Amino acid sequence: MKIGILGGDGFVGWPTALRLSNKGHEVHIIDNLSRRSIDQDLDVRSLTPIASIYERIDAWKEVTGHKIKFHQIDIQKEYDLLSSWLKNERPDVIVHFAEQRAAPYSMKSAKHKCYTVNNNVSGTHNLMAAIVEQELDTHIVHLGTMGVYGYSSVGAPIPEGYLNVNIDLDGKQVSKEILYPANPGSVYHMTKCMDQLVFQYYAKNDNIKITDLHQGIVWGTNTEETNLDERLINRFDYDGDYGTVLNRFLIQAATGHELTVHGTGGQTRAFIHIQDSIKCIEIAIQNPPKESSKVKIFNQATETHRVIDLAKMINGMTGAEIAYVQNPRNEAVENDLIVKNDQFLNLGLNPVKLKEGLLEEILNVAAKYGNRIDTEKIPCVSLWNNDIKKALTNSALLEAI
Amino acid sequence: MKIGILGGDGFVGWPTALRLSNKGHEVHIIDNLSRRSIDQDLDVRSLTPIASIYERIDAWKEVTGHKIKFHQIDIQKEYDLLSSWLKNERPDVIVHFAEQRAAPYSMKSAKHKCYTVNNNVSGTHNLMAAIVEQELDTHIVHLGTMGVYGYSSVGAPIPEGYLNVNIDLDGKQVSKEILYPANPGSVYHMTKCMDQLVFQYYAKNDNIKITDLHQGIVWGTNTEETNLDERLINRFDYDGDYGTVLNRFLIQAATGHELTVHGTGGQTRAFIHIQDSIKCIEIAIQNPPKESSKVKIFNQATETHRVIDLAKMINGMTGAEIAYVQNPRNEAVENDLIVKNDQFLNLGLNPVKLKEGLLEEILNVAAKYGNRIDTEKIPCVSLWNNDIKKALTNSALLEAI
Repeated sequence: MKIGILGGDGFVGWPTALRLSNKGHEVHIIDNLSRRSIDQDLDVRSLTPIASIYERIDAWKEVTGHKIKFHQIDIQKEYDLLSSWLKNERPDVIVHFAEQRAAPYSMKSAKHKCYTVNNNVSGTHNLMAAIVEQELDTHIVHLGTMGVYGYSSVGAPIPEGYLNVNIDLDGKQVSKEILYPANPGSVYHMTKCMDQLVFQYYAKNDNIKITDLHQGIVWGTNTEETNLDERLINRFDYDGDYGTVLNRFLIQAATGHELTVHGTGGQTRAFIHIQDSIKCIEIAIQNPPKESSKVKIFNQATETHRVIDLAKMINGMTGAEIAYVQNPRNEAVENDLIVKNDQFLNLGLNPVKLKEGLLEEILNVAAKYGNRIDTEKIPCVSLWNNDIKKALTNSALLEAI
Repeated sequence: MKIGILGGDGFVGWPTALRLSNKGHEVHIIDNLSRRSIDQDLDVRSLTPIASIYERIDAWKEVTGHKIKFHQIDIQKEYDLLSSWLKNERPDVIVHFAEQRAAPYSMKSAKHKCYTVNNNVSGTHNLMAAIVEQELDTHIVHLGTMGVYGYSSVGAPIPEGYLNVNIDLDGKQVSKEILYPANPGSVYHMTKCMDQLVFQYYAKNDNIKITDLHQGIVWGTNTEETNLDERLINRFDYDGDYGTVLNRFLIQAATGHELTVHGTGGQTRAFIHIQDSIKCIEIAIQNPPKESSKVKIFNQATETHRVIDLAKMINGMTGAEIAYVQNPRNEAVENDLIVKNDQFLNLGLNPVKLKEGLLEEILNVAAKYGNRIDTEKIPCVSLWNNDIKKALTNSALLEAI
């Protein structure tokens, strides 16, 4: 198959490109390299020393003989380039990672909020409009987030995208399937909810085949392919914007710092290992939606944990102490989270669990590249709203985060 | 009160600005004049000879002594100007009309789809981000559309924005209020659904006071204020993109053409007279949401009619014949539509009905300015998807529309 990977230079995009190339597909990476520019703007860098996209692609060819094509296109700002590329290549599948993906980054300032909305929503919509314009039958596989559902306590497993509800119509009970009501917790999450509406519309009006993967927090760094050569190494973000809670803990443990738990640590989140994330994308590609008028939605997560339990797990493995700090986010103090993921399990996913894989990350990533850590970059300094800003500016808590 | 009107040079924006100015409010119009540029691009013009925004404002001062301030700002492309204006003026209320509002225009081509998404969604989001940045307590009154609900047959009155549903949680029935599930029928309508998510998020996270008015098709041209002077006259669009079904019929009747009904004419739509639309906006301004964490939603429509019944009404008044043509839209052939609008009725709205007001439009607008009509501009040539394009390109039907 001919596969375009939008955002194929990024954290999940890059190892996905390698996997699909390794499987013999013709892989094209479309990327504006924004993730690298953002690192420069934030004055941070990946813990792992990542090579340039050109070095990466050359190394891949050298090591495996497979050729990946790279096209530097901004899918939001360069509609015409995107549309021409689609016209020339007519890909069978597009995997769409080309969105700003960090909730804290999306909350840093008005400019960051607007950038995230413009980049993610217009970029996704440009893709849909170009697919229709070029009259393609391309299957779009999009990376969404578990966060579209919100992190409030539901008391029941979260279904895969759709919810059956009963509506009282003048005394008559009618059962309907609706898109699970959106409840985003940040501007970033909001853009993924807006993407859902775009997909719903283009599936209905234009019969575009779309799969939306509602992904949990991806952990782990390397895959079978990125391990083949040092120049293929994947990125590991630990800064306050792009580093996930798990990466923060790993780096804090590696540098002898306390593990900073936001609030009570009662927030429950869903996780998936990067190997499994890529496996899920492969499965999604092999199983396009049967009815093109309805978006196929998978929950792409394999386990859920409370933040405090993660901290305890890492404390158990490393001895690092736990410290509680003020939460910069505006969110429920505690929530439950039960996620249905039957579709992927039924299609053959056999997940790597945190308990098994985390030690590898501690030894071969956090410890190995420990000399590259700048501990000043670890705290999350994006505050969720003006009330939290006022509360924190007036206290010493800001420094403690 | 100090009131900013975004899109205050437009069809409903302009008479709203005059009404609020007449009531003694300090009115600022923010507009990028895009509606006038689009007329130029489409090579069409308002049936009524509208004056420039500068002539309009000068005439208003001359006639009433009231001063309206005009700021030429593109709220999507000029975030900094919007934010500075908010910082300097700190308005009590903003009425937000600044969106591309024609469904057919939004469907003309990929470029028109992308323009509509970028302009509407990013513009609305810029406004929210700027309100938060400037820490304002401004009440935002936004013009949405009945079309967010979709035009499928529901079999029950459409509630005002929210829907109570019952969800089965592991055998336990739980009742929940959700945003009425979005079901847009065009890219334009989709943007209004996306706006809803933006509003929901900013109300929840930042306690922005927001009222969203889900408006039906606005008919009528002039108001008490625009009738004061010829230079204050409001626009009347009859071209295939911006002209509503009602305006098309009026112009066809005035020029001795058949009334072209798309499909069977069984599509039911909601209507409101422009005087009532403005009255509703006044009521909304006087009744801001009590809980700022939840968007207040009104249905702003006063009657519903099937398209065929509208045609028959105008046939009865003018004798114009009815002709059935292929529908360029991808929509249900027939639908019912019952709209709840109790909130506005309870707050004192006393609507003008089509049966009473339509003759005025026929005589004092369509007939009066009949010499300005270019009948070639009447057909809607925006086709909703590639299937409809193929069907129509292969037939003579396209010409008949």
